[in-house]
Amino acid sequence: MTVPTLTEPTDPAILLERIRQINTLAAFNRWAGISVMHATEGEVAIELPWKSELGQYSGFLHAGLIGALIDTVCGFAAATVAGRVLASHFSVNCLAPAVGERFTARGRVTRAGKRQIFTTAELFAHQGAEQKLVANGETLLMRAVE
Amino acid sequence: MTVPTLTEPTDPAILLERIRQINTLAAFNRWAGISVMHATEGEVAIELPWKSELGQYSGFLHAGLIGALIDTVCGFAAATVAGRVLASHFSVNCLAPAVGERFTARGRVTRAGKRQIFTTAELFAHQGAEQKLVANGETLLMRAVE
Amino acid sequence: MTVPTLTEPTDPAILLERIRQINTLAAFNRWAGISVMHATEGEVAIELPWKSELGQYSGFLHAGLIGALIDTVCGFAAATVAGRVLASHFSVNCLAPAVGERFTARGRVTRAGKRQIFTTAELFAHQGAEQKLVANGETLLMRAVE
Amino acid sequence: MTVPTLTEPTDPAILLERIRQINTLAAFNRWAGISVMHATEGEVAIELPWKSELGQYSGFLHAGLIGALIDTVCGFAAATVAGRVLASHFSVNCLAPAVGERFTARGRVTRAGKRQIFTTAELFAHQGAEQKLVANGETLLMRAVE
Repeated sequence: MTVPTLTEPTDPAILLERIRQINTLAAFNRWAGISVMHATEGEVAIELPWKSELGQYSGFLHAGLIGALIDTVCGFAAATVAGRVLASHFSVNCLAPAVGERFTARGRVTRAGKRQIFTTAELFAHQGAEQKLVANGETLLMRAVE
Repeated sequence: MTVPTLTEPTDPAILLERIRQINTLAAFNRWAGISVMHATEGEVAIELPWKSELGQYSGFLHAGLIGALIDTVCGFAAATVAGRVLASHFSVNCLAPAVGERFTARGRVTRAGKRQIFTTAELFAHQGAEQKLVANGETLLMRAVE
Repeated sequence: MTVPTLTEPTDPAILLERIRQINTLAAFNRWAGISVMHATEGEVAIELPWKSELGQYSGFLHAGLIGALIDTVCGFAAATVAGRVLASHFSVNCLAPAVGERFTARGRVTRAGKRQIFTTAELFAHQGAEQKLVANGETLLMRAVE
Repeated sequence: MTVPTLTEPTDPAILLERIRQINTLAAFNRWAGISVMHATEGEVAIELPWKSELGQYSGFLHAGLIGALIDTVCGFAAATVAGRVLASHFSVNCLAPAVGERFTARGRVTRAGKRQIFTTAELFAHQGAEQKLVANGETLLMRAVE
């Protein structure tokens, strides 16, 4: 993913606010209903309530949405440390059927280099008070060149 | 992805018709506007016209949609040889900005084993008569156990 | 990787001994000098002292060895919970130059399903008392069918 | 992998000679017995004769060697178009047991960008006149910064 510049984020409240602004800039994120729950330096959490348009053949969350959540939360985590970034590569493991009334994804930066940011993420399905790990994945991003 | 059973597909017209039926069963595919252009044993092509709800921050195709197209076309290609399948792992390389008036993805089976199906796909952006490779990727699927 | 059967491992000392036996069965592991440091259910650690034949162009650990360590430790971790397994897919992130007097890899099972085992691993370079994360990766394995 | 600089390769014979020089610089490649068969702009082929030290538990080619061949041939293919490169990420699909009297890997550049080079490779096992696809994979490399 591509995200606008974040310059010198220090105040946690400002950082969260900026990631939320970035999220609302993406038309697909607005349509899907993705919201940002948490953002600190190198770690972000997002949430997506279930709706039927998000489903595949069996009515589970579509793999495209699983990928979208993992790529999005990884990109946000990278943005908290590196500002504008672009995804080069991402991968997803489908660990269990993605069924739930809402989904949360947590992403974090594994390593932030001069040019590349390595990130990883986990996706959970929630049903009432129950939480289940349904996917994990990773995204390799490049710092954008101005 | 998970797709319903295809049993002994032989007639090409029937095979294409079945993959089209599977496609219409997925609510997300209907919302996004994915259609099936081509389906033979081991090879499928799909198409997605651009609309603004599919975009990310810069107005390019969202990485989630790039992943959705690659996973979908790989799953369809696997379904032409293996019937009901489930994706275990998929990965995407973002080769160039995904900008265009429509997108096409071509997937094919690399190897169909007794339990696993390996597939690969390419995603093209189209603008008028021009076509550009913007992403590639792969999906590893399991044959569904009845 | 492919490993021989482990049946109902319960005693930790027996489990460690069995993983060590598997390790010595692999000619390449013996040549490279890989040893098993730790093995509990779902988690294994291995070690490799540096020698010049393990190097690439710059004298760092060759990517093939980085992959070998990650695939090996993931396979051992899977073997502690699933007995005989075969790798389907593995991937490696090269986070930093792999330079050190010895290397350790830690692998663990993320999810053990009926047919598939998902694992993840980290590779550290050691120089004296210093330890540095130089790579991470993952392996998707199938339970072997008897 | 990391490879030394190639500057403006034009003459095919010189290009092949340069890739062969790079190959002999890697101690592990010399130990394993990897040789370069073919090198043109964006495409390289390498060969590895079987010997027992290359084996895993069942006497098949060790996954580390499968990864080494794929990463090496991808790095060489990238070097023909981009000079000095460093691998960021590589992945391998194990399609069939890697058994044979020799192995060949063919790598090619999918896209060479300003900073990143995307490559893909296939690995074949040979027994007499028979050839079998046993693995495929990909490597994402960065152009080295001087």
